[in-house]
Amino acid sequence: MKKSLKQIMGSGLCISLLAVGVAGAASAAETTTTTPTTTAQSKNLIVLIGDGMGPAEVTAARYYSKMFLNKDRLELDGGYYVGKATTYSQAGPYTTESGAVTDSSAAATAFSTGHKTYNNAVSVSNGDVAKPYGSVVEAAIKQGKATGLVTTDTIVGATPSVWASHVRQRGNQNAIASQYLNSGVNVFFGGGKINFITKDEKGKRTDKNIIPDFEAKGYKTAYDKAGLDAIPATAGKVLGLFADDAIPYVLDRDDKTPSLPQLTQKALDILSQNKNGFVLMVEAGRIDHAGHGNDLPTNIQETLELDATFKTLVDFAKKDGNTSLVVTADHETGGLSLGRDNVYELNVDLFNKAKHSTDYLDVSLKAAQTADDVRKIVADNVGFTDLSDEEVALILKGDGTSSGRAGGYNAVVSKRLGVGWTGHGHSGVDVGVWAYGPIASLLKGDIDNTDIAKSGAKVIGADLTAVTKELQDKYLYPLFKVTRDSKTLLAARSLAEALDIKVTWDETTKTVVFAKDSQQLSVNVETGAITENGAASALVGNVDNGKLYLPLDAFNKLTGKSFTWDSVSERILIN
Amino acid sequence: MKKSLKQIMGSGLCISLLAVGVAGAASAAETTTTTPTTTAQSKNLIVLIGDGMGPAEVTAARYYSKMFLNKDRLELDGGYYVGKATTYSQAGPYTTESGAVTDSSAAATAFSTGHKTYNNAVSVSNGDVAKPYGSVVEAAIKQGKATGLVTTDTIVGATPSVWASHVRQRGNQNAIASQYLNSGVNVFFGGGKINFITKDEKGKRTDKNIIPDFEAKGYKTAYDKAGLDAIPATAGKVLGLFADDAIPYVLDRDDKTPSLPQLTQKALDILSQNKNGFVLMVEAGRIDHAGHGNDLPTNIQETLELDATFKTLVDFAKKDGNTSLVVTADHETGGLSLGRDNVYELNVDLFNKAKHSTDYLDVSLKAAQTADDVRKIVADNVGFTDLSDEEVALILKGDGTSSGRAGGYNAVVSKRLGVGWTGHGHSGVDVGVWAYGPIASLLKGDIDNTDIAKSGAKVIGADLTAVTKELQDKYLYPLFKVTRDSKTLLAARSLAEALDIKVTWDETTKTVVFAKDSQQLSVNVETGAITENGAASALVGNVDNGKLYLPLDAFNKLTGKSFTWDSVSERILIN
Repeated sequence: MKKSLKQIMGSGLCISLLAVGVAGAASAAETTTTTPTTTAQSKNLIVLIGDGMGPAEVTAARYYSKMFLNKDRLELDGGYYVGKATTYSQAGPYTTESGAVTDSSAAATAFSTGHKTYNNAVSVSNGDVAKPYGSVVEAAIKQGKATGLVTTDTIVGATPSVWASHVRQRGNQNAIASQYLNSGVNVFFGGGKINFITKDEKGKRTDKNIIPDFEAKGYKTAYDKAGLDAIPATAGKVLGLFADDAIPYVLDRDDKTPSLPQLTQKALDILSQNKNGFVLMVEAGRIDHAGHGNDLPTNIQETLELDATFKTLVDFAKKDGNTSLVVTADHETGGLSLGRDNVYELNVDLFNKAKHSTDYLDVSLKAAQTADDVRKIVADNVGFTDLSDEEVALILKGDGTSSGRAGGYNAVVSKRLGVGWTGHGHSGVDVGVWAYGPIASLLKGDIDNTDIAKSGAKVIGADLTAVTKELQDKYLYPLFKVTRDSKTLLAARSLAEALDIKVTWDETTKTVVFAKDSQQLSVNVETGAITENGAASALVGNVDNGKLYLPLDAFNKLTGKSFTWDSVSERILIN
Repeated sequence: MKKSLKQIMGSGLCISLLAVGVAGAASAAETTTTTPTTTAQSKNLIVLIGDGMGPAEVTAARYYSKMFLNKDRLELDGGYYVGKATTYSQAGPYTTESGAVTDSSAAATAFSTGHKTYNNAVSVSNGDVAKPYGSVVEAAIKQGKATGLVTTDTIVGATPSVWASHVRQRGNQNAIASQYLNSGVNVFFGGGKINFITKDEKGKRTDKNIIPDFEAKGYKTAYDKAGLDAIPATAGKVLGLFADDAIPYVLDRDDKTPSLPQLTQKALDILSQNKNGFVLMVEAGRIDHAGHGNDLPTNIQETLELDATFKTLVDFAKKDGNTSLVVTADHETGGLSLGRDNVYELNVDLFNKAKHSTDYLDVSLKAAQTADDVRKIVADNVGFTDLSDEEVALILKGDGTSSGRAGGYNAVVSKRLGVGWTGHGHSGVDVGVWAYGPIASLLKGDIDNTDIAKSGAKVIGADLTAVTKELQDKYLYPLFKVTRDSKTLLAARSLAEALDIKVTWDETTKTVVFAKDSQQLSVNVETGAITENGAASALVGNVDNGKLYLPLDAFNKLTGKSFTWDSVSERILIN
């Protein structure tokens, strides 16, 4: 029907009619939507994330712009601010965490899939048997749209990973890279090469180098600015890995490393070839890193790079006329305040003095032997030639955290700049939301971070519910353990419940009885011995810390299914 | 014309027609407005200020609401958030302040008059000869509207004072009280009785008790909850002074002290009697004080009182149907972060433990002699019975600032709550803007705090330019000094320039020559001797720190005017 409309009508009118058509389809498909869909639609959706970009980080970058860039406002300030979003996650499993302070993966799961989860989760639910949540990118792929993930962090970091992979622990970055291979995402641009290559190649994989697998699937590859430039807009699929881990900070980059606006422009060039439209996620991933380090000069440059990237994106969206763009953050990092102690002043004139990030200085700071060494490092990098003995001592001693001397350095610099930090972790303040295009009307006011995924799906007519169901029909993420002899055992009670297997306890025989239909397994919790429908079984159970574990075969026997274990992604393949 | 429309037409239709009529009038009157006014109009305007209510303060109150009030959101969160505002002030005169971190008076001058100024200024411009800026309240009085100022802080504090008084230094609170007398404002509710009564009466005035002057002008008075209740809605003018200084914190109040919602409801009852409409400013003034103290439990209760006051106001506005309501903050206070150190957690379950504010505890904390004294105070107030020796020592020693032991106490409590502060002063982060009614469409996105005054004036059709001109025709605020023999002398060069008096320097005679029309005064800077049109004068000049000062008479002679000096408000009455 879309095609016939396109054939019949002029393109201008066609777009608005199509929009209504797609809106209707979305409304029918999204059974969770209770209000009628009257929102205008977009063919394309772009989500720009400032990792760790809290309210004060944005204001700091504006102060810098005013003083050094002769700009009274940021690009973001140009009429795009629509509201603010909560950031909290869910109570953490197996910890006392309340979720009041989120990590990047829980926040990103919220704004990519529309579901809250626990800190560390990558697009899976919170529970002993976690289930995958489909993302807007995954739903868009079902629509035949092109998709892309672009970041200055490692491409297997929390913020990109939630859109195209599902793991219980964000640290399982090899699995994330492996899942990307079959994700169908067109463009991957970021750092993180180490999770694609083997330990022998100075990477982190024990299985194999998976870049050839990407190439076999048609991905072009790029590893530096020249490689990026050589990729044609018609490439279709690209894997760009521009650093081993995160891409260097703006302050530390050389000419061989592409900037975030450059990566973004290339992604737009490629994705916009798709006639069905695209979904693009871009992350300025290192505002957060500089926040963790309490390194304001670096933090500001990363925020300004987000702002320049926003300009690239909003210029595209305006020209294109069929794109929704949303900008937000996952959380604030560092507890930054503009002003500190009881001084009503910021020394903005010092905000541009740092030549390099503190990460860059870390090696020389650690190697410093004398006060003079410290004075030279500080003078060379930030131009302060009048360090007091106390300041030198603080740098040599470190700030009392794992940041060590770099922490001491940043404590000294921050005090001189007039800014405060309350730590090296995240904080729970609401974050800003900026938007352009039809999605803007859906994100006004006080929103929850899950509303960003829901609104993004709605505005492109993507079906999060359907893609989530499809994933949950394929995968389960149980609690598990690996024994000394490398066998994988699954936490039995919670998995049994997830599979509708009846679990009973027989006190006299000290056995746990699992039953489904005509199948029954009894497990003696003292010996681990298992009887299968009354007969002795070769299967063995294991009790650890009061929790019973069973091999996957036990569940295959009980259910009559052929579950298999994906040891890389640590999940059950249901079929 | 309005009346005839009202008589002819039904009330529903009438409102929208009237709105268009008033909009046209406003557009004609506001010569500074360059774009055509198409905004819907309101008869009434309400401005609610959370002093010190930065982004993290709002989020903290929401976390409290979720845990203890069974409310997933604040009243403010119910769809009213429209944007955020800058807070910065201008570079301070005679200091090195850049203005990046504002104080309450500069911020409040911005959102009440539409003009940036220096920290400490109360609705006057930045310069050696400051000029008054008219506020939306003063402009509304010219329209025949009723007006009111309501606060939990002293009524002569920075935030209320900017709407109805003009002084160079916010600390001149006696002058602010005196200016209120002739302001025409109908309702004053707050603390601050000490600035209305004499030192003999334990007040701060040296001239006289000015409450009888208010009564002579028709003001009813009230000093407690019973007095407030006794004021009829028809009172017309009311002066309610419910505390010597600030009204006690929510946590410390007794039944005799009215709450901010109660004060606000009474103000609405009185002001809404005026058929021309009203402008009401309400301030939750002590969020800031608790922020300065780093006292989160108190801070949250004050923010929640703002939220309850918002409900009172928005309920009125919805019922009334002809009211614009805007909520914002002047700045953040304390550098609050939700989360601290590297712990991804907030102990929200402890947010409700404090029985009293730290201010309330201050006397007993100062009197504490032993560790056990400290332990008892902490246990009694906040229920922590397991203080470590280090925590006790920190409280006894104080936090190293002028907050002393109260600072130590709050450092200990804040760490246990999981929140951080970077000092006891203000910070420069953008603040939220919430709105209801026609003004909402004017305040969307990233705004400057001056936009609130401009939009408020526009939406009620008030003329800020005209009222500012009227004030500037009456008053000048020069630099001045008071000599040992109690004579007031004015900084001569800047005042001469403001009065179009020509100033020249004669090196040979070491005289400064002031000339206007046919009048000439020559001042010998070494002796202070003055010649008046060539003849010796009884007037004497004075050079202090390289700056020449002259008595006001010198300027009267030069200009032929009859300027007089208002020693209370420290300004020239131009007449």
